[in-house]
Formats: sequence, C-alpha cells, structure tokens
Amino acid sequence: MKEMILHSDLAKKLYQSVKHLPIIDYHNHLSSEDLKNNRRFENITQLWITPDPYKHRLMRICGVEEKYITGNSCDYDKFLAWCKVFPTLVGTPVYDWSLLEFQNVFDIDLPINQTNALKIWELTNEKLQDEEYTVYGLISRFNVEYSAPCANICDDVCFYASTPNFAPSLRADDILSPNKLFIEKLERITNIKISTLNDYYKAIEMRIDYFKSLGCKFCDHALDNGFRYSKDQKEEDYFKLTVQGNTLKKEQSEALKSDILFNLGCIYSKKNLTMLLHVGALRQTSDRLKSIAGPAGGFAGIGNDFEIASITKLLNDIECKNGLCRTVIFTLNPAYNAIIATLSGSFSKDGVPSVVSQGPAWWWCDHLEGMREFFDKYSVYSVLSQFIGMTTDSRSFLSFVRHDYYRRVLCQWLADKIASNQFNADENQLLTIVKKLSYENAKKILEE
Amino acid sequence: MKEMILHSDLAKKLYQSVKHLPIIDYHNHLSSEDLKNNRRFENITQLWITPDPYKHRLMRICGVEEKYITGNSCDYDKFLAWCKVFPTLVGTPVYDWSLLEFQNVFDIDLPINQTNALKIWELTNEKLQDEEYTVYGLISRFNVEYSAPCANICDDVCFYASTPNFAPSLRADDILSPNKLFIEKLERITNIKISTLNDYYKAIEMRIDYFKSLGCKFCDHALDNGFRYSKDQKEEDYFKLTVQGNTLKKEQSEALKSDILFNLGCIYSKKNLTMLLHVGALRQTSDRLKSIAGPAGGFAGIGNDFEIASITKLLNDIECKNGLCRTVIFTLNPAYNAIIATLSGSFSKDGVPSVVSQGPAWWWCDHLEGMREFFDKYSVYSVLSQFIGMTTDSRSFLSFVRHDYYRRVLCQWLADKIASNQFNADENQLLTIVKKLSYENAKKILEE
Amino acid sequence: MKEMILHSDLAKKLYQSVKHLPIIDYHNHLSSEDLKNNRRFENITQLWITPDPYKHRLMRICGVEEKYITGNSCDYDKFLAWCKVFPTLVGTPVYDWSLLEFQNVFDIDLPINQTNALKIWELTNEKLQDEEYTVYGLISRFNVEYSAPCANICDDVCFYASTPNFAPSLRADDILSPNKLFIEKLERITNIKISTLNDYYKAIEMRIDYFKSLGCKFCDHALDNGFRYSKDQKEEDYFKLTVQGNTLKKEQSEALKSDILFNLGCIYSKKNLTMLLHVGALRQTSDRLKSIAGPAGGFAGIGNDFEIASITKLLNDIECKNGLCRTVIFTLNPAYNAIIATLSGSFSKDGVPSVVSQGPAWWWCDHLEGMREFFDKYSVYSVLSQFIGMTTDSRSFLSFVRHDYYRRVLCQWLADKIASNQFNADENQLLTIVKKLSYENAKKILEE
Repeated sequence: MKEMILHSDLAKKLYQSVKHLPIIDYHNHLSSEDLKNNRRFENITQLWITPDPYKHRLMRICGVEEKYITGNSCDYDKFLAWCKVFPTLVGTPVYDWSLLEFQNVFDIDLPINQTNALKIWELTNEKLQDEEYTVYGLISRFNVEYSAPCANICDDVCFYASTPNFAPSLRADDILSPNKLFIEKLERITNIKISTLNDYYKAIEMRIDYFKSLGCKFCDHALDNGFRYSKDQKEEDYFKLTVQGNTLKKEQSEALKSDILFNLGCIYSKKNLTMLLHVGALRQTSDRLKSIAGPAGGFAGIGNDFEIASITKLLNDIECKNGLCRTVIFTLNPAYNAIIATLSGSFSKDGVPSVVSQGPAWWWCDHLEGMREFFDKYSVYSVLSQFIGMTTDSRSFLSFVRHDYYRRVLCQWLADKIASNQFNADENQLLTIVKKLSYENAKKILEE
Repeated sequence: MKEMILHSDLAKKLYQSVKHLPIIDYHNHLSSEDLKNNRRFENITQLWITPDPYKHRLMRICGVEEKYITGNSCDYDKFLAWCKVFPTLVGTPVYDWSLLEFQNVFDIDLPINQTNALKIWELTNEKLQDEEYTVYGLISRFNVEYSAPCANICDDVCFYASTPNFAPSLRADDILSPNKLFIEKLERITNIKISTLNDYYKAIEMRIDYFKSLGCKFCDHALDNGFRYSKDQKEEDYFKLTVQGNTLKKEQSEALKSDILFNLGCIYSKKNLTMLLHVGALRQTSDRLKSIAGPAGGFAGIGNDFEIASITKLLNDIECKNGLCRTVIFTLNPAYNAIIATLSGSFSKDGVPSVVSQGPAWWWCDHLEGMREFFDKYSVYSVLSQFIGMTTDSRSFLSFVRHDYYRRVLCQWLADKIASNQFNADENQLLTIVKKLSYENAKKILEE
Repeated sequence: MKEMILHSDLAKKLYQSVKHLPIIDYHNHLSSEDLKNNRRFENITQLWITPDPYKHRLMRICGVEEKYITGNSCDYDKFLAWCKVFPTLVGTPVYDWSLLEFQNVFDIDLPINQTNALKIWELTNEKLQDEEYTVYGLISRFNVEYSAPCANICDDVCFYASTPNFAPSLRADDILSPNKLFIEKLERITNIKISTLNDYYKAIEMRIDYFKSLGCKFCDHALDNGFRYSKDQKEEDYFKLTVQGNTLKKEQSEALKSDILFNLGCIYSKKNLTMLLHVGALRQTSDRLKSIAGPAGGFAGIGNDFEIASITKLLNDIECKNGLCRTVIFTLNPAYNAIIATLSGSFSKDGVPSVVSQGPAWWWCDHLEGMREFFDKYSVYSVLSQFIGMTTDSRSFLSFVRHDYYRRVLCQWLADKIASNQFNADENQLLTIVKKLSYENAKKILEE
C-alpha cells in the first residue's frame, strides 16, 4: 500500500525520524470531563462522529437529514449516514484524517462506505471495549507529551494538578467581553472586590498565576471577523457600566475589549506566557443551525473583515508599554497568510526567535493544500525553521493523528525543495529542521 | 496532435465518458434576437469577434487602435487585427478557447496569426454559408439541452414558449434598483397599481410566475463591488419617494435594494427557484471606454470591497423568514474562493445538497488556472461532488466550447488526485463524479 | 553543478539568449553618494549586509541580537552572525540571491555557514580591493544600461547630468504630503512664490522639467495601507493652511494628497512620464524598531486596506481631464495580484500597449513563488508579453543579480507552458517574448 502523502525516498526517510517524536498539542478543545473520567466510548459514533463538527458539516452539505447528524437517530444510523457520504468526499481533509485514524488507531484498512459500514461498526466497537481505547489509552498510543485543552478563567481546573501530560490553556474570551455575572463570579473565586478595571486586572492576574502553576503556557483569544483594536480612553466608564449590569453599545464594547486585550498582553509579557490570537472566523451565520447544533456546531464561516493594521497597533502598544509577549496569530482566511507571516519580521526581541509568528493552518484551513500553502508562504515571508509547529485545536481524541498528517506534509514539502534544487543541505541539516518543526520548537517554548 | 489539457490516460478515459453529454448552460447573455431569427452570420468577425468583449479587451491591452475593435474599420481589418495579436497571448483563456472553437466547430487547425489570416477568413466564411452554422445549427452541434439567456422582468419573453432548449433566466437588476419609469412599465404589464412595496412584490411575483411557466429556474443578481446588505426599516418611505420620481441617496437606495433582495429571496424560496448572486465586479472604471464601447464593453475590473458577513446576514434573514432558497454565489475576485466555498457549510436543508454553494470560476476567472483553483478550493472547503457545474455567462454562440474546456480540466484534475494517491476510488466511482459535475447535478436542479 | 531554477533544456536555451542583455532598472534606492564617490567597499559586510534590510529582518526573526544587526558589533561579527543563520533559511529569496551574488560577482561557490565564514570573509575582502569591485566596477560587470535611483523633487540631482547610465526617478512622497518647510525649500529652488495650489503645481512642473532633462522617465508614489482617493473640493483651503504652517486633520491631508496626486498624474500625462504607484505597504509597525533601525530598517509589513475602486477613480479622473499617463501599479499584498492585473484591461490608449499595468513582484513578494504567481496571474488576467519587466527597488549594488534571477524564473515559466502543451510557439516566437520581458519592453518606454 502506498504511504499517504509521502512519495519520495528522502521524504520517507525524514518522516521516519519524526514519526515517533512525542506530540505537543498546545491548544485544543478536548473535554476535561472525558479526561477526568478516562472515558470509555460506547461505540465508534460516540468517539468518531458525535464530537466532530467537521463531519456534521460535510453531511449537511451533502443534504443528509439533521436527524442523522445531531438529531434523534440511533448511533448506528448516524454512523451509516456518514459512511454513505464518505466515498464522495474527494479532497476534504476529513477524508484523509479518517483513513489515518482507522489505520493508525484501529488498524483497519477497509474502504469506508455503505457496504462496509456494519463490518466496521462491529470491528471498532469490539476494540473500544479494550483499555487501549479509553481516553488515556489513546493518549498513550499517540505519545502525547503536552496537551492543552482550553479552559475559561473561572473554570475549576484544579484537576490539572494531577495530569502530567495535560495543562489548561487559557481561553480568555469571557475576560474580553465581561458582563455583571462573570465579574461577580470572578470576585467570588478570587476574593477581590472588583469596581475598577484595575481591580479587574488584579483578579485576572491572580487567576493567571494559578493557571500558570498548573502548567499553563498559552492564552487564547478569538478576535472574530470585524474586530478592531480601538481604545478611546473611556474604557473605565464602560467597565463601570458593565459592573452595574448595563449592556454596552458596539463601539463601547469594542473599546473595552481593546483595552482588556492590551492589558492582558502586558500581563502575558510580564509572566512569560504566549498569546494566541485567532482571527478571521465568521461565527454568526445561520440562526437555525445555531439553535439546532449549538454554538460550536460546525456552521461557522470564514470572515473577510480583518485589518492587519489593527493587530499591529495592539502589538506595538504592548511592546512600548512592557516589551512584547510571544504572540502567535492564527488566520481562518488563507488570503491573510502572506500578511501575517510577514508581520513576524515587524517585531523582534533579542535572543527570542519569532516573538511574533503565525500559527499553523487552522480549522477549515487545516488540510493538505492549506499546510502546503502555509509552508510556501511562511518560508518566503518569514523563516520557516522558526515556526512553532502543529496544534490540532480539536474536540476529538482521535485528532492527534493530524500531527502525523502534518509531519508527512512537512517532510514531503522539504524533500520537494531539495529535489527541485531550491535548497542545499545535507541530511543532518534536514533532520534538524523537521525535528524542530515537529516537536523541538514547541518544546523550547514549554521550557522557557 | 496532443489533446488540450488532458495528459494522463485516466483523464482521457474519464473525458470520453462526459465529452458527449448534453450541455446545461443555466446562465448566459445570448441574444434573444439572434435566437428568434436563427441568425446566419455574415462572416467570422460577426460571429467570433464582434460579440466578444474578452477579445476587445485583449486587443486594447496590446495597444490596438479602437477603430479595429469597436470602430469603423471593416470586418476583415478587425479580424486581421485580432490575428496579429493572437500569437502573443500566452496564458490567456481566450487563446485556448479560440483553438477549441476552431477545432470543434470549424475543424480548422491552422495557427491563428497574421500569415494565416486571409486563409482562415475565407475558410470560415465559406462554412458560415452552411445551415450548420446558423444559430440553431450551432446549438445542435453543441448538444445544448437547456440554455438560459437572461431577461429583465418586463421583457417580452413569450418567444421562449416555443423554444424547447431555451428558457429565460431572470435578470433582476432593475427590480433591485427601481425607478419611476420601470415601476410604471411593470404596472402596465401586470395591470397592478403599484403604490407600496407590497404592491410591487405582488406585481413581481406575477411576472415571476410567468417566467416560471416558460421554464425559468434561475434568477440572477449583480451585487457589484461595495454592496452592503443594510435594511433600515424605512424602505417603504424610500420606495414611495421612488414611485414619485425622486432619486434616492446612496444609503437609501442601498437599504431599498437590500429589502427588495430579501423579499425576492423569500419569493424564490416559496417558488423553488434558484437565486444566483454575482459579487465582486467593478463595473465603474473608464468613462471614456464606457462611452465608446457601451456598458458591457469588456473594461470591467475586479473589485475588492465585498463583505461575506453581509451576504451571510441576507441568507440568514431569508432562512428565518421563509426557509432558504437554493443560492449560488459567483465571485469575480478569486481571493474570495475560500470564504464563499466555506459558506456552503453554514446553511443546510434536509435532503437538499448544497442549498448554498459557489458558482464556477466566473468571467475573468474563467480559465485553466481559475478552474483548477476552484476545484482545489471547493474540494477542501466544501464538497466538490455536490457542485452545480459549469455555465458560460457568455454573449457568444461559440462559447459553449467552454463546457468542453471545463470537462477537460475537471477530468485531468480528478485524475491527478488519483495519480498522487490523494483519493481512492474505482473507475465507476470516478465516472459518477465527473458525470455529476458535467451534467447531472445541474439536470437535477432543473427537475426539482 | 545544477543551474539555479532552470531545469529544462528549452528553459536553459531561452535563458542563454537573455542572460547577457543589458539591465534596465527603472526604480531603485541606490545611494547617490556612493555613485558620486565611486565607493570602494571596506569589507563584505559593508557591501553585502549593512545596506540590506532584508538580511537584517531575517536575523531578527531568528532571534539574533540587535547589536549584530544594526548595533555596535564589529563588521566581522555581523558577518558571522549572518553566516550562522544562513543555512536555516529554506525558501527565503535572500538565500537564492546570496548564492547568485557570490557566484556571479565573487566567483565563490562555498556553502555560506559558520564554518566557512572566515574563509569567505578573507576571500571577498581581498577581491574588494580590486577596481572591479568599486561601484562602477560592479555596474559595468552587471551591464547596467539604465538605472534610476529615486530622488526627491528638491534634491540636488545635477550630478546625473554626467552619468550616462544613471538618471533620477522622482520620489514624489514629499510632494503629496507638503509642509511649510518643504514648500519654502521649493520656493527657494524654483524662485516661484507659492501661495496657491496653482503656484505649487507650477513650481513642481518646473522641477519635473529639470528632472526630465537629466533623463528622468519614472515618477514614484508610495500609497501606503489605507490610502483613499478622496477629493472634496476644499483642497485649496487645506493647502493654504499648510502654507501657514498648520497641521491638517487626517481627512484633510488625504483630500489634499488626492488632489495633488491627480494633478501630478495630469502633468505626467502631458510630459510623457510614467507614474509608478506602490500600494499595500504597512510601514507603521514597531516604534521600537523604527527608533533603532530608522524608517527603512526592514520591519515594514504588508497592509490589507487597499481599495482598487479608489485607484480606479483616480485613473479615470486623470484620463477624463488630460488623457491617461502610463501607470504601473506595484502591490506588496499578493492577494491583490488578480485585481491589479485585471485593471490593465480597464483603460486603453490607441497605439500604446498597457497604458495601465502591474509592476513586477515587489519587495517582500520579490521571490521565486512571488514571480511565478505574478506570471501565472498576469498571463491570465492581462497580456504577459506586454509586461514592463523587472526592477529591483533595492538599496544594494549587488541586487542587480535579481535581474538574472528574474530571467531564469521567466524562461523556466515559459518553457513549462510549452512542456505542458498550454502554448504553441516556435523558438523564435519564444525568444521574442523573453527578450521583450527581459529588456525590450522597458527599453521602448525609455525611447518614447
């Protein structure tokens, strides 16, 4: 059988050297409940389809009825519905991931289709009984060294004190858009009376210290389509309105959000945390699907109202105030790859490679073409060998195979550069690069 | 002689299976006068150059004097001017289309250049005397099953009652931007007194029913560069101002346009019509060329002021009100391919594949690279096998060769996926896909 | 040793025919001081690293301390710092340029790395003693026929009267954003009392005539990220405020800038000068780096707030007033390639090919992928054979190798078109095209 993606000898050789490296997945959405309970999955639908909005989305595009997606049908019927559309999915990343998940995790090579559905259902469900297929069984199979499911600042995360391979990453969205209830909750947790922005930042900082004590190194922010960094010096007033339970106007809440983001950046800088910014998502689409499938139901789109000048001003303000924290920007719109890669040359810190950098091809862009385009663009507009490397941002425990996928794409991409005489290096130099990009660059950040 | 585009055995084999499928061209600008009269073309310039703004544009870029383009020169001199620039047009789609038009329609393989000009002129003009080269001769040669030239809502379209292979597609631009004269005309035609928006929609609906009775399935809207969906609840006032003959301010006319577009969408939804949206054209460029060559004279540009959030809100409003009509979005700016393809996963309808989808590479994007990029993007951001397929949007009766061109690109693209081990499928599965994308998906919409 | 970029026989053959053609570099930033003094470079750092912000930027991304970039370290340590990062720069254009610079100019093929640093330092410094490596030695080696370093309108440029291969290109940025001091300087130089915009344009025109008498053919304008063409009929007032020493508000200065740009365009049109517009640069990034490295210190980013409709209106206004001057638009954001290439078909002038065209892949886009993408896009959205050709826009006397680089990419690109059966032409026709794009099209503009 042909190796997925890898087609040259050099690529295959490079891949052998990174295939078994541990996985650092510095931002994802894995369920902490499943982690706590070391969940055992009842059947393949529960593990493979229910937590995966990518598959839901593809079934919807194919016209599958919602009852087989998020509705009341039984798990087998949902599985069957997915198997029916599977053979038509030429080019989608989910096609490739599915093959890898079955090969790497279940050792199954059967074509996924209606004919084989029942057989696969039985084979996988049998395996799922085994200890190897519980959450920790899977984690161990994937050789996960560090995985960072995101948690909100008020979440109960004490559980991470006892999970050597897991640490929370901070999801700061509710911090950026506070309301009365949230502030009261934060007061209770921190025992800090919050009346002013200053109080607010003090409470946040206290919680961040706690997150840090649990291994947290990354703090994430969703700057959705249309966000502008726009402080107007009246943020204290807006915050007070918020404390009193008022709802802010759009401009006011954007100004407040800007001020908080700026201050968070300054805190991260002080505490040596990495700021992740996710830009370009268009989360407001179909109200109908939102009510059916929930806010993370796979119906988000890609926005095209992002302004690089706005983010640039944010970073400059943080740098001027406090020195710049390490910042990684993820874009959902691939048309922004060049501008974000290039921004990595607009800020610097002595002795710190890539204080500003781009994150890997993200979410809907996380596929073969997306990764190749990322490597193409990042290598010409920045310095690829300084790239932080892959993270899945996924909700599924099977998604760690995407690191394998990424490593394959990387090794083939680099081998192509050699084959086309665009880069001269001996094998050792090439190994150094693929290891850095598969594991070591991220590892170094963990050790900072 | 080497086959255009097709270079692998598998691609050639796939192509053989779609080469002779009928053509469904669901949106174009063919002249209804020429159709009515079954026009016989006097010479090759009249058929091949005069109605083709793509060629005019290329000649202008090459510095050809306007008298040889739209001016007073004789037809032979215009033909000669085109033959002179032809050999320099490396990479333009018109180069490939021209070769196919000559091969497929005239069985001529002579290089097109100054030396061969007279010979080609004589050969083609001789053939044009033949019945096979009248409008219906050409239609029959191309095996056109359904062709939909666009017509305005007040146009006399009764002629389509007697054309089995033709039906009007509705061009709704004057509906979206009404003025007093247009409203009065609509009153006369429908015998409905129009004072309010409600009256207006009643009259429109009556005409749409009539269009439908003539086979109309598609309704087209040009949402040019800068359009924002921006209702403000005062549309009734703006409409009354319009009825009274006033000219609206920019914001007012945009709000009115938004309200009308929303209501049209609701009508289409009720009547099971497909809404086509064309975005990203920059039609306002050189006033000089507009006065010389007319509004469709080939000098339009590509805009970059389109907001996906705006269209998304429109679709959500229609869906909330009435359920969503099938919607196909065409973009002239290729930088929007990813975001529009992705939007196809943001709306759904039980049992209806791709209720929102992207149209094929359009107008200036309708070329080899544009199609490949479309296939690349649509396959990763949506589900390619659900794609509606090709339409020409052309003014020339020779342009049906573009379906042949499209089918070649498609077959080679899919064969490449197999060759590079990115997709596993047997020949039957591949044939199913190329047939769907060449003909069957569009056919299914006709039959809905 | 394998030829860089060229890998097919046809490509190599085409390249042989353009390799030794003279160089026309119609816009760059070479130091006129170095030209006047026929500078001899002390060491390789002075020639190769100090004047090259591209290298500074890459070192910063790699975390090199600023003292080794723009700081106080000795030249050898700076050279060593660069040699250390060099082997990791897979994909960056500076990697390829460096190899070509060493091969073509110094006849050195040693891998650039820490190990070879001292040896290379010694070899090159020895050569730099030779007459061949002075500024004029280098110019002669590169066969430079016309090079146009930019100069401000008030600069002392009389020196160009005696440099047969050099002429100033006008850098009009201070004209577009005048202040009191600048206007007073212009008064002194021209002996024209400037109170009104009319006076201002008279003085500018006098200086432009002088520049023209020194061989100036090109006038350059930086329309940075966010610029809108937005005249409001109050420009005379804004100008008077400026003359009086006031600072304008943002909207006022943009309106004034728009009016001046429009009037400059009309002057260029009258005087048969070519207008260069550079769009998409984001120059305002890190204040810290600006203070350390100066305004051209290599930390600029790419903007994404450019509106094609705005530039289109400018061109239409000039055309309506005075006929359109030849205009070449350079974009730093590659996402705008399609729209700018397409704009070339929106304006025309009898007998003048490409009155509006796109400039070559610029600045951060000036690399293998950028050039290929340019050729791909320009050939489908415009007419590639009418393209003006390469210019470096560089500050380094070694950068003329980029013409060699460009010619290689061009020849391989065209050979690929033939190999993939996408273009039919005999060798003579191909030679005609590569010669036009390497030299003759630019030469023709010089002779207009």
